[in-house]
Amino acid sequence: MADKNLTAILYKQGDLKLEDLPVKEPGPGQVQLSMKDVGICGSDVHYWTHGAIGDFIVKAPMILGHEAAGVVCKLGEGVTTLKVGDRVAIEPGVPCKMCKYCKKGRYNLCPDMKFCATPPYDGNLARFYCHDADYCYKLPDHVSNEEGALLEPLSVGVHACARAGVEIGSRVLICGAGPIGLVNMLTAKARGAAEIIMTDIDQSRLDFAKSLGANHILKVTSRDPQVTANQIEEIMGDKVDITIECSGAPPSIRTGIFATAPGGCVVLVGLGPADVELPIVNASVREVDIRGIFRYVNCYPTALAMVASGQVNVKPLVTHRFKLEQALEAFQMAKEGKGVKIIINCEK
Amino acid sequence: MADKNLTAILYKQGDLKLEDLPVKEPGPGQVQLSMKDVGICGSDVHYWTHGAIGDFIVKAPMILGHEAAGVVCKLGEGVTTLKVGDRVAIEPGVPCKMCKYCKKGRYNLCPDMKFCATPPYDGNLARFYCHDADYCYKLPDHVSNEEGALLEPLSVGVHACARAGVEIGSRVLICGAGPIGLVNMLTAKARGAAEIIMTDIDQSRLDFAKSLGANHILKVTSRDPQVTANQIEEIMGDKVDITIECSGAPPSIRTGIFATAPGGCVVLVGLGPADVELPIVNASVREVDIRGIFRYVNCYPTALAMVASGQVNVKPLVTHRFKLEQALEAFQMAKEGKGVKIIINCEK
Amino acid sequence: MADKNLTAILYKQGDLKLEDLPVKEPGPGQVQLSMKDVGICGSDVHYWTHGAIGDFIVKAPMILGHEAAGVVCKLGEGVTTLKVGDRVAIEPGVPCKMCKYCKKGRYNLCPDMKFCATPPYDGNLARFYCHDADYCYKLPDHVSNEEGALLEPLSVGVHACARAGVEIGSRVLICGAGPIGLVNMLTAKARGAAEIIMTDIDQSRLDFAKSLGANHILKVTSRDPQVTANQIEEIMGDKVDITIECSGAPPSIRTGIFATAPGGCVVLVGLGPADVELPIVNASVREVDIRGIFRYVNCYPTALAMVASGQVNVKPLVTHRFKLEQALEAFQMAKEGKGVKIIINCEK
Amino acid sequence: MADKNLTAILYKQGDLKLEDLPVKEPGPGQVQLSMKDVGICGSDVHYWTHGAIGDFIVKAPMILGHEAAGVVCKLGEGVTTLKVGDRVAIEPGVPCKMCKYCKKGRYNLCPDMKFCATPPYDGNLARFYCHDADYCYKLPDHVSNEEGALLEPLSVGVHACARAGVEIGSRVLICGAGPIGLVNMLTAKARGAAEIIMTDIDQSRLDFAKSLGANHILKVTSRDPQVTANQIEEIMGDKVDITIECSGAPPSIRTGIFATAPGGCVVLVGLGPADVELPIVNASVREVDIRGIFRYVNCYPTALAMVASGQVNVKPLVTHRFKLEQALEAFQMAKEGKGVKIIINCEK
Repeated sequence: MADKNLTAILYKQGDLKLEDLPVKEPGPGQVQLSMKDVGICGSDVHYWTHGAIGDFIVKAPMILGHEAAGVVCKLGEGVTTLKVGDRVAIEPGVPCKMCKYCKKGRYNLCPDMKFCATPPYDGNLARFYCHDADYCYKLPDHVSNEEGALLEPLSVGVHACARAGVEIGSRVLICGAGPIGLVNMLTAKARGAAEIIMTDIDQSRLDFAKSLGANHILKVTSRDPQVTANQIEEIMGDKVDITIECSGAPPSIRTGIFATAPGGCVVLVGLGPADVELPIVNASVREVDIRGIFRYVNCYPTALAMVASGQVNVKPLVTHRFKLEQALEAFQMAKEGKGVKIIINCEK
Repeated sequence: MADKNLTAILYKQGDLKLEDLPVKEPGPGQVQLSMKDVGICGSDVHYWTHGAIGDFIVKAPMILGHEAAGVVCKLGEGVTTLKVGDRVAIEPGVPCKMCKYCKKGRYNLCPDMKFCATPPYDGNLARFYCHDADYCYKLPDHVSNEEGALLEPLSVGVHACARAGVEIGSRVLICGAGPIGLVNMLTAKARGAAEIIMTDIDQSRLDFAKSLGANHILKVTSRDPQVTANQIEEIMGDKVDITIECSGAPPSIRTGIFATAPGGCVVLVGLGPADVELPIVNASVREVDIRGIFRYVNCYPTALAMVASGQVNVKPLVTHRFKLEQALEAFQMAKEGKGVKIIINCEK
Repeated sequence: MADKNLTAILYKQGDLKLEDLPVKEPGPGQVQLSMKDVGICGSDVHYWTHGAIGDFIVKAPMILGHEAAGVVCKLGEGVTTLKVGDRVAIEPGVPCKMCKYCKKGRYNLCPDMKFCATPPYDGNLARFYCHDADYCYKLPDHVSNEEGALLEPLSVGVHACARAGVEIGSRVLICGAGPIGLVNMLTAKARGAAEIIMTDIDQSRLDFAKSLGANHILKVTSRDPQVTANQIEEIMGDKVDITIECSGAPPSIRTGIFATAPGGCVVLVGLGPADVELPIVNASVREVDIRGIFRYVNCYPTALAMVASGQVNVKPLVTHRFKLEQALEAFQMAKEGKGVKIIINCEK
Repeated sequence: MADKNLTAILYKQGDLKLEDLPVKEPGPGQVQLSMKDVGICGSDVHYWTHGAIGDFIVKAPMILGHEAAGVVCKLGEGVTTLKVGDRVAIEPGVPCKMCKYCKKGRYNLCPDMKFCATPPYDGNLARFYCHDADYCYKLPDHVSNEEGALLEPLSVGVHACARAGVEIGSRVLICGAGPIGLVNMLTAKARGAAEIIMTDIDQSRLDFAKSLGANHILKVTSRDPQVTANQIEEIMGDKVDITIECSGAPPSIRTGIFATAPGGCVVLVGLGPADVELPIVNASVREVDIRGIFRYVNCYPTALAMVASGQVNVKPLVTHRFKLEQALEAFQMAKEGKGVKIIINCEK
């Protein structure tokens, strides 16, 4: 039936179900999408296993999924930039478009952001989904739906590398070789970084990172951040210009500061404990800046251009594929930390 | 006698003496200066009372003083930009002029910087002193020697406000109402900051800050940084755009982060404990940057322009004056925390 | 009667009329405003006298006026940020909020901008007018309606000085001492410019500029732009860091390039002939950038903060005042080039 | 004999000779270099054929050559960063290291710059040559001397692309497919430009550009800059973000402005007539910035990192090689416009 809409709903912590929901109609400025591929993000898994991330608490049933691509199947009132049949990547956050952050081009800081699968807003792991047309980006014929879905994590790399100021010739440390570390590595390379070293505590992740283009890898074994920083400096021949911290582990953040040259910066992408003891005098007197990132802003067009032009190849990130009907199985695998990126195909 | 050169030498911790030293001749590119006014900085006092600041340890006798103005009395080989009789402000740090930091215009990060009264380099609290001509800035007739000496602390404000990106309309929190807090306030005002709140634990310092132009003052009484941040937000009507932390106190740094609006930044000017526990997730997800500063770079010409044009009036900062012969008395007063800025006049 | 809405309509070139129109209801997200003060801009006069500005041609009757302040008298659906009785300054351009320029914070470049009194969009020189609430800025009690109206030209200065990078210590040349030159001078001062020279061909405008704070004035008499540049350099003691060109006169643009120091920039605010012969090699090899501006973006809050904090005093700009009923008389005076800023009060 | 120093001297316009000169000793801070490879630049040829470039006039015999690599054969006093036997790329301009431009990191604007083969300063097309050690960059073993010499033109691309703000996803127009157009294309690619179109009036140059990586090429046939801009827009699907103009031809500059999207910029690299008529209103109201470049600054380390990391391959640029003894033959070929980059090997 046309209005059957198989959907992955998280009822509460640990309670993820597949159900048929009614198909919603697109509002003004929206498009209705027949969903294609949706990647599983660590945050989806975390909401499922913990019922919350920091202050974002699942208080009512919430549809999961926010790394997604679909096909336009109906146009809402006033939509002129897309047409039925267009394949699009979906930027999952829609801001208010009216506050000072939106006006200034930093809409990721909009206090009224509606972001897929962040409570209380539904995600798009479903057969059908409606989204604002101006946050859907048409994919060229040679870019696949999976690549479209992967623009979401790639956008995190685009934003982090921009905040970090990675440029041609940069020497970069990336802490953490999971999916977010990898998209940062790919983006840093595309921006012309001359040399990249990646750290992790898992050798297989590091080997995978190396196969994707990391120049150097280092398995972290010491509990002393300064020792790890010294190892990095020895491998790189000098301190790095930039650290992109994707693990959230406090010792790793400290290592990042110690390993970064004067005038450089440490960008915090991974989130760990709320409070972390930092070597703040060391950072200050060497003018090593500490910058966090929140999601991304104005990055989808760039991420798409990178993939479409062939400068970045995200395809190897996808290690497992499931059908929507197998969503629980896919989440189980993600929970076990297997693979790199797991994609759920939502087509019937 | 022309070659008598009364000088304030710190032999070791606690052992500050006035002695007559030979007058040095200017090297190539240098000028010999008949010293006029030299301000006492907290670091001068700290070397005297503690014999060290962090890794900088007084291992051999060192002349104190680095906030200074003098008159050119002899030109070294090749000097063409100054002439005998010119009154100049002395930028106390002379970098190598050859390393990548010097080439890039961030010479404050030069690893071979020679900075007055930072071990092992001598300062200029003396009758005569030689300095590189390109780090001496000619004072116009209407700018006094005392103002010339005050360009040093003012340059810290110029650098901190630039790193902070203070601009017209900015709403700024300055933590700490000592001399460095005050020069930051004056600079922020000159850059067009719309509203400035200053905090301290000393009411008299706050009252002085208010008399110099701070819009709001807040005596910190709570031990909970979030409470102080809430008080600041209430007074200012909203979180501030920028925090300039001049106290170095860990609770104050935390307050700065909590009190700063998304997309803003906290600049660390004051130095306290090497390690500080910071609310790093709070800062990251709101993209509140944390930036340290090290001294200043390319700030003397700006500081001089501000004073010369009348946009900044630093004269009220000077609360006490001594002759060079009274240097120990002056240091004793500085140690007791009396006054704001104490100036030692080095003329005979 | 409540629905009487006296309005200044430009029917076609030279044909400006006052008529009673129906009062419009506010749409979703809009507020209905009881108009207070509206300034006359050169563009209003130009549409009246010429029927067009460049490609913008008056093809249908158009209400004039875009420098305005009013009082909220009715809320459209969904408006929560304003309430009835709020006095507001009206930013006259409302962009689409959806295109890449809007998303990136450069909404002044939005191709679908609806800007008051730019064909085919109506202005607000009327008793009543409806506008998007997010482009209305609440005035504090101590900021007058006239000051609210003046935020419009002041925003041009805010944008131009930001594009120019005027900062503390900057030495600035402003070509043209009309209202736009004056708001640039006031803004440059507020940003900490150390020294400002203004040029014009009219001595009385220059005298007024000097009375408002310009450090130097120069009546342009030579037809040779290099000669004028030399005069400027002599007065300022060196080339300037920044030129803000507000006259649009080709010789003045050339003077601006010649008078600007290497590494500086010339910002083009005034518009003159479409094509101008520029000394492009001179500019290039000295890395003097040439930057235009189009209106302003994200400048109203800054302009308001400047006025509210007392850093900028725009009141002296208003030299003449008229009632709405006298609008034609006011336009006649504006056409004759009398006064600086003419304000029309729209209250009954 | 050790002190035989075969050298290419330009006596005056059209009078280029090879002569044996004495070998100079390195001054303090300098190294003596045994020269390896020196590329011929258009400026070398121009000095030979015209005796001047703009205000730079050959008034006394001048050694040519400034795109060079050599081997350190003697250390001057105080040199510690290099050792005998080091192969180095030579940045040909040595600034004063003392003026405000040098201090600010824009040493290319230093008024006292000594630049090889720019009158009155000698170049390095010789067996032996002395240069400041801090402007010599040690080549890793896997980077050849020819690549070292090519860092000079590559640095022009590095500087131009930085001034242009080329970034990942950028869509770029490069006008002129000579050596400078090509290094800009290679650099833009390395910075992540998504799509590059190059124009020229010579099809063979365009074909070569395409073989090196240009996405699109367009042979300019129309005399109307707007027509060419329309063709570019049609090929690229939209206006470009950035234009890098390397031809210096006035119609090409106009095309660059017309072809660039609002908010973009046109960087002027090629130099042509001193005065050019520009569509300045078109550029201004769309905020298309016009920025020139002068040589490069802080670009050698980046250029070297790009080549050393393999991100940029400059080797294909070298189409012809000569021995120093054949220098006149090499210049004759360069004058005839044959080949892309001609290298002269200075080894015995």
